[in-house]
Amino acid sequence: MNFCTACGAPVALKIPPGDSLPRHVCGGCGAIHYRNPRLVVGALPEWEDRVLLCRRAIEPRHGKWTLPAGFMENGETVAAAAMRETMEEACARIELGAMYTVISVPHIHQVHVIYRSRLLDLDFAPGAETLELRLFAEDEIPWDEIAFRTIAITLRHFFADRSRGRYGFHSEDIAAPAPR
Amino acid sequence: MNFCTACGAPVALKIPPGDSLPRHVCGGCGAIHYRNPRLVVGALPEWEDRVLLCRRAIEPRHGKWTLPAGFMENGETVAAAAMRETMEEACARIELGAMYTVISVPHIHQVHVIYRSRLLDLDFAPGAETLELRLFAEDEIPWDEIAFRTIAITLRHFFADRSRGRYGFHSEDIAAPAPR
Repeated sequence: MNFCTACGAPVALKIPPGDSLPRHVCGGCGAIHYRNPRLVVGALPEWEDRVLLCRRAIEPRHGKWTLPAGFMENGETVAAAAMRETMEEACARIELGAMYTVISVPHIHQVHVIYRSRLLDLDFAPGAETLELRLFAEDEIPWDEIAFRTIAITLRHFFADRSRGRYGFHSEDIAAPAPR
Repeated sequence: MNFCTACGAPVALKIPPGDSLPRHVCGGCGAIHYRNPRLVVGALPEWEDRVLLCRRAIEPRHGKWTLPAGFMENGETVAAAAMRETMEEACARIELGAMYTVISVPHIHQVHVIYRSRLLDLDFAPGAETLELRLFAEDEIPWDEIAFRTIAITLRHFFADRSRGRYGFHSEDIAAPAPR
């Protein structure tokens, strides 16, 4: 951030009075610009014993598999965001179930939220950000080709909960990957 | 938003190619500026059969009672935000329990998340944004003086769950208040 959104003057990083963290403060009008984590919201669509995954047509992780999910928009609920993303990425109609995982990803300033859901029909089709869609049984999941750790964690919880016959709610954190 | 944070040129609201919603797009460098909902995160601190509420020293809802909560910061987890806000607003040390409520407030572009928690001692004290702190038993809760609907909903779930001896996880939405 270089310039103030309100007046266009340059901003500088400084700790405002009464605050404890550096913020972008406008040198012109004095506005303080806060930056906050974003919510990435999606669904885990089930059809009988299989789950629907999307192969990504965009970066990051082009070509890898994921659940339909994306940035929550202003003016919508978390549940509405999950249904919208499922429609945008998989053109899929779902009945939304319970909120299932909430996973903090602090090093990229995101919180990922996935709902359980049930596909209403098999008339899904790749959206603009999706190369390919496929229903996977548990033993077909391409674990080494899952795009994001939060998605792999969610799928592992799902299959573990399913095998024990009881679905919980899971909230947890992931740390930054170790440097290579 | 009037000016681009990257280059300082004026922005205009327009729908970018491939998008479906108007965004602030820079007339100079072409940057697209997205705006996303913010997370408000806090805790419900218990001490024996009572819960800790804070009387607000700031607007909105100056003088009303709330749970310690505030905007999640970049770089932290949801759980860390709940503990930080409890320390900032009530100088209170807690042991964090389970994530308890996640409530969408779409008309103000927020999602409120409250954890259950246990006060570790009674050495709490009002932070800079708090007038007064008090432990309330269920029949002492000032229901007409609770600052936010999400907090009242969380407290009602808590007392209902407690009376039935089983705490669930609750995710829901609230609609905009009816115009007066």
